[in-house]
Amino acid sequence: MGKLLVVGSVALDSVKTPFGEVTDALGGSATFFCTAASYFTDVQLVAVVGEDFPPEHLAVLQRDRVDLNGLERRPGRTFRWRGEYSYKLNEAKTLDTQLNVFETFRPTVPESYRTPSQLFLANIDPELQLMVLSQVQRPSIVALDTMNFWIDGKIGALRKVLKEADILIINDGEAQALGDNRNLVQVSRIIRSFGPRTLIIKRGEYGVAMFHGDAMFALPAYPLDDLKDPTGAGDSFAGGFMGFLASASSSDEQSLRQAVVYGSVMASFAVQSFSVDRLAALTDEDIKKRYIEFSRFTTF
Amino acid sequence: MGKLLVVGSVALDSVKTPFGEVTDALGGSATFFCTAASYFTDVQLVAVVGEDFPPEHLAVLQRDRVDLNGLERRPGRTFRWRGEYSYKLNEAKTLDTQLNVFETFRPTVPESYRTPSQLFLANIDPELQLMVLSQVQRPSIVALDTMNFWIDGKIGALRKVLKEADILIINDGEAQALGDNRNLVQVSRIIRSFGPRTLIIKRGEYGVAMFHGDAMFALPAYPLDDLKDPTGAGDSFAGGFMGFLASASSSDEQSLRQAVVYGSVMASFAVQSFSVDRLAALTDEDIKKRYIEFSRFTTF
Repeated sequence: MGKLLVVGSVALDSVKTPFGEVTDALGGSATFFCTAASYFTDVQLVAVVGEDFPPEHLAVLQRDRVDLNGLERRPGRTFRWRGEYSYKLNEAKTLDTQLNVFETFRPTVPESYRTPSQLFLANIDPELQLMVLSQVQRPSIVALDTMNFWIDGKIGALRKVLKEADILIINDGEAQALGDNRNLVQVSRIIRSFGPRTLIIKRGEYGVAMFHGDAMFALPAYPLDDLKDPTGAGDSFAGGFMGFLASASSSDEQSLRQAVVYGSVMASFAVQSFSVDRLAALTDEDIKKRYIEFSRFTTF
Repeated sequence: MGKLLVVGSVALDSVKTPFGEVTDALGGSATFFCTAASYFTDVQLVAVVGEDFPPEHLAVLQRDRVDLNGLERRPGRTFRWRGEYSYKLNEAKTLDTQLNVFETFRPTVPESYRTPSQLFLANIDPELQLMVLSQVQRPSIVALDTMNFWIDGKIGALRKVLKEADILIINDGEAQALGDNRNLVQVSRIIRSFGPRTLIIKRGEYGVAMFHGDAMFALPAYPLDDLKDPTGAGDSFAGGFMGFLASASSSDEQSLRQAVVYGSVMASFAVQSFSVDRLAALTDEDIKKRYIEFSRFTTF
Protein backbone atom coordinates (compact mmCIF):
# COMPACT_ATOMS: atom_id res chain seq x y z
CA MET A 1 0.00 0.00 0.00
CA GLY A 2 1.17 3.51 -0.76
CA LYS A 3 2.45 5.82 1.92
CA LEU A 4 2.60 9.54 2.63
CA LEU A 5 5.43 11.02 0.60
CA VAL A 6 7.03 14.40 1.29
CA VAL A 7 9.61 16.36 -0.65
CA GLY A 8 11.17 19.38 1.00
CA SER A 9 14.23 20.65 2.79
CA VAL A 10 16.39 19.32 5.58
CA ALA A 11 18.38 22.25 6.91
CA LEU A 12 20.67 23.61 9.55
CA ASP A 13 18.87 26.54 11.16
CA SER A 14 20.40 29.30 13.24
CA VAL A 15 17.54 31.08 14.92
CA LYS A 16 17.24 33.87 17.42
CA THR A 17 13.98 34.72 19.19
CA PRO A 18 13.27 36.83 22.28
CA PHE A 19 13.39 33.56 24.22
CA GLY A 20 16.77 32.19 23.17
CA GLU A 21 18.88 31.18 20.22
CA VAL A 22 20.34 28.12 18.51
CA THR A 23 23.09 27.56 15.94
CA ASP A 24 22.97 24.92 13.19
CA ALA A 25 19.96 23.24 14.77
CA LEU A 26 18.02 20.58 12.87
CA GLY A 27 15.43 22.32 10.69
CA GLY A 28 13.87 22.37 7.25
CA SER A 29 10.32 21.93 6.02
CA ALA A 30 10.60 18.17 5.49
CA THR A 31 12.09 17.68 8.96
CA PHE A 32 9.14 19.29 10.76
CA PHE A 33 6.66 17.64 8.39
CA CYS A 34 8.03 14.08 8.83
CA THR A 35 8.35 14.39 12.57
CA ALA A 36 4.76 15.60 12.96
CA ALA A 37 3.27 13.14 10.45
CA SER A 38 5.08 10.15 11.97
CA TYR A 39 2.66 10.14 14.94
CA PHE A 40 -0.15 9.30 12.53
CA THR A 41 1.20 7.32 9.59
CA ASP A 42 4.26 6.01 7.72
CA VAL A 43 6.18 8.73 5.89
CA GLN A 44 8.67 8.62 3.05
CA LEU A 45 11.13 11.49 2.72
CA VAL A 46 12.80 12.94 -0.38
CA ALA A 47 15.43 15.56 0.49
CA VAL A 48 19.14 16.27 0.36
CA VAL A 49 21.86 17.00 2.93
CA GLY A 50 25.59 17.71 2.63
CA GLU A 51 28.64 15.86 3.91
CA ASP A 52 28.60 18.03 7.04
CA PHE A 53 25.16 16.87 8.20
CA PRO A 54 25.73 15.82 11.82
CA PRO A 55 25.00 12.23 12.85
CA GLU A 56 23.11 13.47 15.94
CA HIS A 57 20.63 15.28 13.64
CA LEU A 58 20.28 12.16 11.51
CA ALA A 59 19.44 10.25 14.67
CA VAL A 60 16.55 12.66 15.34
CA LEU A 61 15.21 12.28 11.80
CA GLN A 62 15.34 8.48 12.16
CA ARG A 63 11.97 7.53 13.56
CA ASP A 64 10.09 4.22 13.40
CA ARG A 65 7.59 5.48 10.87
CA VAL A 66 9.94 7.64 8.77
CA ASP A 67 11.61 6.07 5.72
CA LEU A 68 14.88 7.89 4.92
CA ASN A 69 15.81 5.97 1.74
CA GLY A 70 15.06 9.10 -0.26
CA LEU A 71 17.37 11.32 1.80
CA GLU A 72 20.38 11.92 -0.45
CA ARG A 73 23.77 12.82 0.98
CA ARG A 74 25.73 14.89 -1.54
CA PRO A 75 29.22 16.42 -1.69
CA GLY A 76 29.15 19.94 -0.22
CA ARG A 77 27.47 21.66 2.70
CA THR A 78 23.93 21.29 3.99
CA PHE A 79 21.33 23.99 3.28
CA ARG A 80 21.54 26.68 5.99
CA TRP A 81 19.07 29.31 7.10
CA ARG A 82 19.64 32.04 9.62
CA GLY A 83 16.74 34.13 10.91
CA GLU A 84 15.50 36.22 13.73
CA TYR A 85 12.09 36.90 15.28
CA SER A 86 11.24 40.04 17.20
CA TYR A 87 8.46 40.15 19.80
CA LYS A 88 6.03 40.33 16.91
CA LEU A 89 6.50 36.62 16.29
CA ASN A 90 4.43 36.22 13.15
CA GLU A 91 7.19 36.80 10.67
CA ALA A 92 10.85 35.82 10.60
CA LYS A 93 13.52 38.20 9.36
CA THR A 94 15.83 36.14 7.18
CA LEU A 95 19.42 37.15 7.85
CA ASP A 96 21.13 34.63 5.61
CA THR A 97 20.25 31.77 3.27
CA GLN A 98 22.92 29.39 1.95
CA LEU A 99 21.39 26.95 -0.51
CA ASN A 100 24.58 24.84 -0.71
CA VAL A 101 23.64 21.28 -1.85
CA PHE A 102 20.07 22.45 -2.31
CA GLU A 103 21.16 24.67 -5.19
CA THR A 104 21.64 21.77 -7.59
CA PHE A 105 19.09 19.45 -5.98
CA ARG A 106 17.01 17.52 -8.50
CA PRO A 107 14.69 15.26 -6.54
CA THR A 108 14.84 11.60 -7.47
CA VAL A 109 11.97 9.59 -6.12
CA PRO A 110 13.19 6.09 -5.17
CA GLU A 111 11.45 3.15 -6.87
CA SER A 112 9.82 2.13 -3.57
CA TYR A 113 8.20 5.59 -3.20
CA ARG A 114 6.51 5.82 -6.60
CA THR A 115 2.97 4.86 -5.65
CA PRO A 116 2.32 7.20 -2.70
CA SER A 117 -1.14 7.33 -1.16
CA GLN A 118 -0.68 11.05 -0.39
CA LEU A 119 1.93 13.56 -1.47
CA PHE A 120 3.06 16.76 0.23
CA LEU A 121 5.16 19.16 -1.81
CA ALA A 122 6.75 21.41 0.81
CA ASN A 123 7.79 24.96 0.00
CA ILE A 124 10.45 24.50 -2.69
CA ASP A 125 10.91 25.67 -6.31
CA PRO A 126 7.66 24.75 -8.14
CA GLU A 127 9.80 23.28 -10.93
CA LEU A 128 11.13 20.74 -8.45
CA GLN A 129 7.57 20.12 -7.26
CA LEU A 130 6.63 19.35 -10.88
CA MET A 131 9.59 16.98 -11.20
CA VAL A 132 8.35 15.00 -8.23
CA LEU A 133 4.79 14.90 -9.56
CA SER A 134 6.06 13.52 -12.89
CA GLN A 135 7.87 10.65 -11.15
CA VAL A 136 4.98 9.24 -9.14
CA GLN A 137 1.64 7.59 -9.80
CA ARG A 138 -1.15 10.09 -9.04
CA PRO A 139 -1.82 9.82 -5.28
CA SER A 140 -5.28 10.30 -3.80
CA ILE A 141 -4.24 13.65 -2.32
CA VAL A 142 -1.65 16.14 -3.56
CA ALA A 143 -1.05 19.06 -1.21
CA LEU A 144 1.48 21.83 -1.43
CA ASP A 145 2.95 24.83 0.26
CA THR A 146 4.62 27.77 -1.47
CA MET A 147 5.84 31.30 -0.72
CA ASN A 148 5.95 34.85 -2.12
CA PHE A 149 9.36 34.21 -3.68
CA TRP A 150 7.82 31.62 -6.05
CA ILE A 151 4.56 33.54 -6.49
CA ASP A 152 6.59 36.51 -7.70
CA GLY A 153 9.31 34.67 -9.59
CA LYS A 154 7.91 31.39 -10.91
CA ILE A 155 4.19 31.90 -11.27
CA GLY A 156 4.07 29.83 -14.50
CA ALA A 157 5.47 26.68 -12.94
CA LEU A 158 3.48 27.30 -9.76
CA ARG A 159 0.21 27.51 -11.71
CA LYS A 160 1.06 24.14 -13.30
CA VAL A 161 1.54 22.55 -9.87
CA LEU A 162 -1.68 24.16 -8.61
CA LYS A 163 -3.57 22.62 -11.50
CA GLU A 164 -2.57 19.18 -10.22
CA ALA A 165 -3.13 19.96 -6.54
CA ASP A 166 -6.06 19.07 -4.28
CA ILE A 167 -5.01 21.18 -1.32
CA LEU A 168 -2.98 24.38 -1.01
CA ILE A 169 -1.62 25.33 2.42
CA ILE A 170 -0.23 28.89 2.60
CA ASN A 171 -0.18 31.89 4.92
CA ASP A 172 -2.50 34.89 4.56
CA GLY A 173 0.00 37.27 2.98
CA GLU A 174 0.85 34.64 0.37
CA ALA A 175 -2.84 33.96 -0.31
CA GLN A 176 -3.46 37.66 -0.89
CA ALA A 177 -0.47 37.82 -3.26
CA LEU A 178 -1.48 34.71 -5.18
CA GLY A 179 -5.13 35.79 -5.43
CA ASP A 180 -4.10 39.41 -6.06
CA ASN A 181 -6.85 40.50 -3.69
CA ARG A 182 -7.12 41.41 -0.01
CA ASN A 183 -10.53 39.93 0.72
CA LEU A 184 -10.32 36.44 2.19
CA VAL A 185 -13.58 35.22 0.67
CA GLN A 186 -12.71 36.49 -2.80
CA VAL A 187 -9.17 35.12 -2.48
CA SER A 188 -10.54 31.70 -1.62
CA ARG A 189 -12.65 31.66 -4.79
CA ILE A 190 -9.86 32.91 -7.04
CA ILE A 191 -7.22 30.50 -5.77
CA ARG A 192 -9.54 27.52 -5.93
CA SER A 193 -10.28 28.38 -9.55
CA PHE A 194 -6.57 27.62 -10.17
CA GLY A 195 -6.99 23.96 -9.18
CA PRO A 196 -7.06 23.08 -5.47
CA ARG A 197 -10.52 22.23 -4.18
CA THR A 198 -9.34 22.99 -0.66
CA LEU A 199 -7.49 26.10 0.49
CA ILE A 200 -5.94 26.32 3.92
CA ILE A 201 -4.76 29.72 5.09
CA LYS A 202 -2.34 29.83 8.01
CA ARG A 203 -2.75 32.96 10.12
CA GLY A 204 0.05 32.55 12.66
CA GLU A 205 -1.07 33.46 16.18
CA TYR A 206 -4.67 33.77 14.90
CA GLY A 207 -4.89 30.15 13.83
CA VAL A 208 -6.07 28.80 10.52
CA ALA A 209 -8.98 29.04 8.09
CA MET A 210 -9.98 26.37 5.58
CA PHE A 211 -12.15 26.91 2.53
CA HIS A 212 -13.70 23.76 1.08
CA GLY A 213 -16.86 23.51 -0.99
CA ASP A 214 -19.06 26.43 -0.02
CA ALA A 215 -18.00 26.33 3.62
CA MET A 216 -15.35 27.98 5.72
CA PHE A 217 -13.88 26.33 8.78
CA ALA A 218 -11.74 28.34 11.19
CA LEU A 219 -9.75 27.32 14.21
CA PRO A 220 -7.84 29.56 16.64
CA ALA A 221 -4.21 28.90 17.44
CA TYR A 222 -3.49 27.14 20.72
CA PRO A 223 -2.89 29.86 23.33
CA LEU A 224 0.64 29.38 24.67
CA ASP A 225 2.47 31.29 27.35
CA ASP A 226 5.70 29.40 26.69
CA LEU A 227 6.19 29.92 22.98
CA LYS A 228 9.90 29.65 22.13
CA ASP A 229 10.36 29.62 18.34
CA PRO A 230 7.75 29.84 15.56
CA THR A 231 10.09 28.18 13.01
CA GLY A 232 8.51 25.06 11.54
CA ALA A 233 4.98 25.77 12.74
CA GLY A 234 3.54 25.68 9.21
CA ASP A 235 5.32 22.47 8.23
CA SER A 236 4.36 20.80 11.50
CA PHE A 237 0.77 21.84 10.78
CA ALA A 238 1.03 20.24 7.33
CA GLY A 239 2.54 17.09 8.86
CA GLY A 240 -0.25 16.65 11.39
CA PHE A 241 -2.87 17.55 8.78
CA MET A 242 -1.64 15.16 6.07
CA GLY A 243 -0.67 12.47 8.58
CA PHE A 244 -4.17 12.42 9.99
CA LEU A 245 -5.76 12.31 6.52
CA ALA A 246 -3.52 9.37 5.60
CA SER A 247 -4.47 7.51 8.77
CA ALA A 248 -8.17 8.27 8.27
CA SER A 249 -8.05 7.14 4.61
CA SER A 250 -10.62 9.81 3.94
CA SER A 251 -10.76 13.38 2.76
CA ASP A 252 -14.41 14.21 3.29
CA GLU A 253 -15.20 17.54 4.91
CA GLN A 254 -15.44 16.10 8.41
CA SER A 255 -12.01 14.47 8.06
CA LEU A 256 -10.52 17.66 6.62
CA ARG A 257 -11.78 19.62 9.64
CA GLN A 258 -10.38 17.12 12.10
CA ALA A 259 -7.11 17.15 10.14
CA VAL A 260 -6.93 20.93 10.59
CA VAL A 261 -7.25 20.42 14.33
CA TYR A 262 -4.50 17.77 14.38
CA GLY A 263 -2.33 20.07 12.27
CA SER A 264 -2.87 22.87 14.77
CA VAL A 265 -2.07 20.52 17.65
CA MET A 266 1.26 19.57 16.08
CA ALA A 267 2.11 23.21 15.25
CA SER A 268 1.44 24.19 18.86
CA PHE A 269 3.94 21.61 20.12
CA ALA A 270 6.53 22.61 17.50
CA VAL A 271 6.69 26.22 18.70
CA GLN A 272 7.17 25.27 22.35
CA SER A 273 10.85 24.59 21.71
CA PHE A 274 13.62 25.33 19.25
CA SER A 275 14.09 22.84 16.40
CA VAL A 276 12.01 19.66 16.79
CA ASP A 277 12.99 19.17 20.43
CA ARG A 278 9.42 19.09 21.73
CA LEU A 279 7.75 17.86 18.54
CA ALA A 280 9.96 14.76 18.41
CA ALA A 281 9.28 13.80 22.04
CA LEU A 282 5.48 13.55 22.25
CA THR A 283 3.21 10.75 23.37
CA ASP A 284 -0.09 9.87 21.73
CA GLU A 285 -1.66 10.97 25.01
CA ASP A 286 -0.14 14.50 24.68
CA ILE A 287 -1.68 14.79 21.21
CA LYS A 288 -5.09 13.47 22.23
CA LYS A 289 -5.24 15.79 25.24
CA ARG A 290 -4.48 18.89 23.20
CA TYR A 291 -7.02 17.87 20.53
CA ILE A 292 -9.69 17.81 23.23
CA GLU A 293 -8.58 21.23 24.48
CA PHE A 294 -9.19 22.61 20.99
CA SER A 295 -12.81 21.50 21.14
CA ARG A 296 -13.15 23.34 24.44
CA PHE A 297 -11.84 26.53 22.78
CA THR A 298 -14.46 26.45 20.08
CA THR A 299 -17.69 24.95 21.43
CA PHE A 300 -20.68 27.16 22.17
CA MET B 1 -37.25 45.41 36.54
CA GLY B 2 -33.90 46.89 35.58
CA LYS B 3 -32.81 47.25 32.00
CA LEU B 4 -29.57 47.33 30.02
CA LEU B 5 -28.01 50.77 30.41
CA VAL B 6 -25.35 52.19 28.12
CA VAL B 7 -23.34 55.38 28.31
CA GLY B 8 -21.29 56.40 25.31
CA SER B 9 -21.17 58.70 22.34
CA VAL B 10 -23.65 59.67 19.67
CA ALA B 11 -21.66 61.21 16.84
CA LEU B 12 -21.61 62.49 13.32
CA ASP B 13 -19.08 60.38 11.42
CA SER B 14 -17.40 61.23 8.14
CA VAL B 15 -15.78 58.06 6.93
CA LYS B 16 -13.92 57.02 3.84
CA THR B 17 -13.14 53.40 3.01
CA PRO B 18 -12.01 51.76 -0.25
CA PHE B 19 -15.71 51.03 -0.84
CA GLY B 20 -17.22 54.47 -0.49
CA GLU B 21 -17.59 57.44 1.80
CA VAL B 22 -20.15 59.25 3.93
CA THR B 23 -20.34 62.70 5.55
CA ASP B 24 -21.92 63.43 8.94
CA ALA B 25 -23.47 59.98 9.07
CA LEU B 26 -25.03 58.70 12.29
CA GLY B 27 -22.29 57.14 14.40
CA GLY B 28 -20.89 56.90 17.91
CA SER B 29 -20.32 53.98 20.25
CA ALA B 30 -23.73 54.23 21.96
CA THR B 31 -25.52 54.38 18.60
CA PHE B 32 -24.10 51.09 17.37
CA PHE B 33 -24.48 49.53 20.82
CA CYS B 34 -28.17 50.46 21.24
CA THR B 35 -29.12 49.46 17.74
CA ALA B 36 -27.50 46.02 18.09
CA ALA B 37 -28.76 45.39 21.64
CA SER B 38 -32.35 46.39 20.80
CA TYR B 39 -32.87 43.10 18.94
CA PHE B 40 -32.43 41.27 22.25
CA THR B 41 -33.59 43.47 25.10
CA ASP B 42 -34.74 46.93 26.27
CA VAL B 43 -31.94 49.48 26.31
CA GLN B 44 -31.57 52.81 28.08
CA LEU B 45 -29.20 55.37 26.60
CA VAL B 46 -27.15 58.10 28.30
CA ALA B 47 -25.42 60.37 25.79
CA VAL B 48 -25.32 63.93 24.48
CA VAL B 49 -25.90 65.61 21.12
CA GLY B 50 -25.79 69.21 19.97
CA GLU B 51 -28.42 71.52 18.54
CA ASP B 52 -27.38 70.51 15.02
CA PHE B 53 -28.25 66.84 15.49
CA PRO B 54 -30.46 66.04 12.50
CA PRO B 55 -34.02 64.81 13.07
CA GLU B 56 -33.52 62.02 10.52
CA HIS B 57 -30.69 60.61 12.67
CA LEU B 58 -32.86 60.88 15.75
CA ALA B 59 -35.50 58.88 13.90
CA VAL B 60 -32.99 56.06 13.35
CA LEU B 61 -32.01 56.05 17.04
CA GLN B 62 -35.69 55.85 18.02
CA ARG B 63 -36.47 52.15 18.18
CA ASP B 64 -39.17 50.29 20.06
CA ARG B 65 -36.79 48.91 22.64
CA VAL B 66 -34.52 51.96 22.99
CA ASP B 67 -35.29 54.50 25.71
CA LEU B 68 -33.88 57.93 24.76
CA ASN B 69 -34.83 59.82 27.94
CA GLY B 70 -31.16 59.99 28.84
CA LEU B 71 -30.12 61.53 25.52
CA GLU B 72 -29.35 65.16 26.34
CA ARG B 73 -29.53 67.87 23.71
CA ARG B 74 -27.12 70.68 24.60
CA PRO B 75 -26.22 74.07 23.11
CA GLY B 76 -23.41 73.65 20.59
CA ARG B 77 -22.43 71.16 17.94
CA THR B 78 -22.58 67.37 18.02
CA PHE B 79 -19.40 65.33 18.51
CA ARG B 80 -17.78 64.73 15.12
CA TRP B 81 -15.26 62.13 13.98
CA ARG B 82 -13.59 61.92 10.61
CA GLY B 83 -11.55 58.86 9.64
CA GLU B 84 -10.26 56.81 6.80
CA TYR B 85 -9.55 53.12 6.28
CA SER B 86 -7.07 51.80 3.74
CA TYR B 87 -7.33 48.29 2.28
CA LYS B 88 -5.85 47.05 5.53
CA LEU B 89 -9.19 47.52 7.23
CA ASN B 90 -8.25 46.66 10.79
CA GLU B 91 -7.37 50.14 11.91
CA ALA B 92 -8.87 53.54 11.18
CA LYS B 93 -6.72 56.57 10.60
CA THR B 94 -8.35 59.40 12.53
CA LEU B 95 -8.20 62.60 10.46
CA ASP B 96 -10.15 64.85 12.78
CA THR B 97 -11.95 64.71 16.12
CA GLN B 98 -14.20 67.56 17.29
CA LEU B 99 -15.46 66.88 20.80
CA ASN B 100 -17.91 69.80 20.72
CA VAL B 101 -20.72 69.15 23.26
CA PHE B 102 -18.90 66.04 24.37
CA GLU B 103 -16.09 68.17 25.80
CA THR B 104 -18.12 69.33 28.78
CA PHE B 105 -20.38 66.29 28.96
CA ARG B 106 -21.02 65.15 32.53
CA PRO B 107 -23.37 62.16 32.32
CA THR B 108 -26.52 62.44 34.38
CA VAL B 109 -28.35 59.18 34.80
CA PRO B 110 -32.12 59.82 34.83
CA GLU B 111 -34.01 58.61 37.90
CA SER B 112 -35.75 55.90 35.87
CA TYR B 113 -32.36 54.44 34.82
CA ARG B 114 -30.80 54.06 38.26
CA THR B 115 -31.39 50.36 38.86
CA PRO B 116 -30.04 48.84 35.66
CA SER B 117 -29.81 45.07 35.33
CA GLN B 118 -26.66 45.42 33.18
CA LEU B 119 -24.40 48.35 32.43
CA PHE B 120 -22.15 48.96 29.45
CA LEU B 121 -19.61 51.76 29.73
CA ALA B 122 -18.60 52.44 26.15
CA ASN B 123 -15.20 53.88 25.28
CA ILE B 124 -15.23 57.30 26.98
CA ASP B 125 -13.09 59.04 29.61
CA PRO B 126 -12.82 56.62 32.55
CA GLU B 127 -13.67 59.52 34.88
CA LEU B 128 -17.06 59.75 33.17
CA GLN B 129 -17.41 55.98 33.45
CA LEU B 130 -16.82 56.34 37.22
CA MET B 131 -19.45 59.12 37.41
CA VAL B 132 -22.03 56.80 35.88
CA LEU B 133 -21.09 53.95 38.20
CA SER B 134 -21.55 56.22 41.21
CA GLN B 135 -25.10 57.15 40.14
CA VAL B 136 -26.54 53.67 39.77
CA GLN B 137 -27.32 50.72 41.98
CA ARG B 138 -24.76 47.98 41.31
CA PRO B 139 -26.08 46.00 38.29
CA SER B 140 -25.50 42.26 37.90
CA ILE B 141 -23.02 42.88 35.08
CA VAL B 142 -20.73 45.86 34.48
CA ALA B 143 -18.85 45.74 31.20
CA LEU B 144 -16.60 48.33 29.62
CA ASP B 145 -14.57 49.26 26.60
CA THR B 146 -11.57 51.57 26.58
CA MET B 147 -8.72 52.63 24.28
CA ASN B 148 -4.98 53.41 24.25
CA PHE B 149 -5.66 57.12 24.79
CA TRP B 150 -7.09 56.38 28.27
CA ILE B 151 -4.62 53.58 29.00
CA ASP B 152 -1.79 56.06 28.39
CA GLY B 153 -3.37 59.17 29.85
CA LYS B 154 -5.80 58.16 32.61
CA ILE B 155 -4.57 54.84 33.91
CA GLY B 156 -5.47 55.76 37.51
CA ALA B 157 -9.15 56.36 36.81
CA LEU B 158 -9.22 53.42 34.40
CA ARG B 159 -7.86 51.07 37.07
CA LYS B 160 -10.65 52.25 39.40
CA VAL B 161 -13.28 51.40 36.79
CA LEU B 162 -11.65 48.04 36.11
CA LYS B 163 -11.85 47.20 39.81
CA GLU B 164 -15.65 47.52 39.56
CA ALA B 165 -15.99 45.73 36.22
CA ASP B 166 -17.01 42.17 35.45
CA ILE B 167 -16.16 42.20 31.77
CA LEU B 168 -13.61 44.15 29.74
CA ILE B 169 -14.02 44.26 25.95
CA ILE B 170 -10.99 45.68 24.10
CA ASN B 171 -8.91 45.05 20.99
CA ASP B 172 -5.63 43.17 20.98
CA GLY B 173 -3.31 46.17 20.77
CA GLU B 174 -5.10 47.76 23.72
CA ALA B 175 -4.91 44.52 25.71
CA GLN B 176 -1.17 44.33 25.11
CA ALA B 177 -0.78 47.96 26.20
CA LEU B 178 -2.91 47.54 29.31
CA GLY B 179 -1.21 44.27 30.30
CA ASP B 180 2.20 45.65 29.25
CA ASN B 181 2.93 42.29 27.65
CA ARG B 182 2.69 40.79 24.15
CA ASN B 183 1.67 37.27 25.10
CA LEU B 184 -2.08 36.78 24.97
CA VAL B 185 -2.23 34.21 27.76
CA GLN B 186 -0.10 36.30 30.11
CA VAL B 187 -2.07 39.44 29.19
CA SER B 188 -5.30 37.67 30.07
CA ARG B 189 -3.98 36.81 33.54
CA ILE B 190 -2.58 40.28 34.20
CA ILE B 191 -5.68 42.19 33.11
CA ARG B 192 -8.03 39.93 35.02
CA SER B 193 -5.97 40.54 38.14
CA PHE B 194 -7.10 44.20 37.79
CA GLY B 195 -10.76 43.26 38.34
CA PRO B 196 -12.74 41.85 35.40
CA ARG B 197 -13.35 38.12 35.65
CA THR B 198 -13.95 38.01 31.91
CA LEU B 199 -11.71 39.49 29.23
CA ILE B 200 -12.84 39.74 25.63
CA ILE B 201 -10.23 40.60 23.03
CA LYS B 202 -11.46 41.85 19.66
CA ARG B 203 -9.12 40.87 16.83
CA GLY B 204 -10.75 42.57 13.84
CA GLU B 205 -10.82 40.34 10.78
CA TYR B 206 -9.54 37.44 12.92
CA GLY B 207 -12.55 37.43 15.22
CA VAL B 208 -12.56 37.43 18.98
CA ALA B 209 -11.09 35.58 21.96
CA MET B 210 -12.64 35.39 25.42
CA PHE B 211 -10.82 34.46 28.61
CA HIS B 212 -13.04 33.36 31.47
CA GLY B 213 -12.09 31.13 34.39
CA ASP B 214 -9.29 28.86 33.18
CA ALA B 215 -10.72 28.59 29.68
CA MET B 216 -10.28 30.41 26.41
CA PHE B 217 -13.03 30.62 23.83
CA ALA B 218 -12.26 31.86 20.33
CA LEU B 219 -14.50 32.61 17.39
CA PRO B 220 -13.50 33.64 13.86
CA ALA B 221 -14.97 36.74 12.25
CA TYR B 222 -17.77 36.16 9.76
CA PRO B 223 -16.15 35.94 6.31
CA LEU B 224 -17.60 38.75 4.19
CA ASP B 225 -16.97 39.61 0.60
CA ASP B 226 -19.07 42.76 0.82
CA LEU B 227 -17.49 44.55 3.77
CA LYS B 228 -18.11 48.31 3.45
CA ASP B 229 -17.03 50.07 6.65
CA PRO B 230 -15.53 48.62 9.85
CA THR B 231 -16.66 51.62 11.96
CA GLY B 232 -18.83 50.51 14.85
CA ALA B 233 -17.96 46.81 14.63
CA GLY B 234 -16.70 46.70 18.22
CA ASP B 235 -19.69 48.56 19.68
CA SER B 236 -22.11 46.42 17.68
CA PHE B 237 -20.31 43.38 19.07
CA ALA B 238 -20.76 44.75 22.58
CA GLY B 239 -24.44 45.46 21.90
CA GLY B 240 -25.17 41.94 20.68
CA PHE B 241 -23.09 40.47 23.49
CA MET B 242 -24.68 42.45 26.34
CA GLY B 243 -28.14 42.34 24.77
CA PHE B 244 -28.06 38.56 24.63
CA LEU B 245 -26.79 38.28 28.23
CA ALA B 246 -29.61 40.56 29.38
CA SER B 247 -32.20 38.46 27.54
CA ALA B 248 -30.71 35.21 28.85
CA SER B 249 -30.64 36.58 32.44
CA SER B 250 -27.49 34.54 32.91
CA SER B 251 -23.77 34.99 32.74
CA ASP B 252 -22.54 31.43 33.12
CA GLU B 253 -19.80 30.29 30.77
CA GLN B 254 -22.20 28.77 28.25
CA SER B 255 -24.19 32.02 28.05
CA LEU B 256 -21.01 34.09 27.74
CA ARG B 257 -19.92 31.94 24.79
CA GLN B 258 -23.27 32.25 23.06
CA ALA B 259 -23.18 35.99 23.74
CA VAL B 260 -19.80 36.20 21.97
CA VAL B 261 -21.41 34.56 18.94
CA TYR B 262 -24.37 36.98 18.97
CA GLY B 263 -21.91 39.85 19.35
CA SER B 264 -20.00 38.62 16.32
CA VAL B 265 -23.23 38.24 14.37
CA MET B 266 -24.18 41.87 15.05
CA ALA B 267 -20.65 43.12 14.22
CA SER B 268 -20.77 41.27 10.91
CA PHE B 269 -23.99 43.05 9.93
CA ALA B 270 -22.67 46.44 11.07
CA VAL B 271 -19.71 46.35 8.68
CA GLN B 272 -21.81 45.47 5.65
CA SER B 273 -22.88 49.09 5.32
CA PHE B 274 -21.88 52.59 6.35
CA SER B 275 -23.39 53.91 9.60
CA VAL B 276 -26.13 51.66 11.03
CA ASP B 277 -27.90 51.27 7.68
CA ARG B 278 -27.78 47.48 7.67
CA LEU B 279 -27.65 47.00 11.45
CA ALA B 280 -30.88 48.93 11.96
CA ALA B 281 -32.80 46.97 9.33
CA LEU B 282 -32.46 43.34 10.42
CA THR B 283 -35.05 40.69 11.13
CA ASP B 284 -34.79 38.12 13.90
CA GLU B 285 -34.51 35.56 11.12
CA ASP B 286 -31.38 37.27 9.69
CA ILE B 287 -29.76 37.06 13.12
CA LYS B 288 -30.73 33.45 13.75
CA LYS B 289 -29.49 32.37 10.33
CA ARG B 290 -26.09 33.96 10.80
CA TYR B 291 -25.77 32.48 14.30
CA ILE B 292 -26.23 29.02 12.78
CA GLU B 293 -23.61 29.79 10.13
CA PHE B 294 -21.13 30.51 12.92
CA SER B 295 -21.60 27.02 14.28
CA ARG B 296 -20.85 25.64 10.85
CA PHE B 297 -17.57 27.61 10.76
CA THR B 298 -16.35 26.10 13.99
CA THR B 299 -17.64 22.54 14.36
CA PHE B 300 -15.32 19.59 13.85
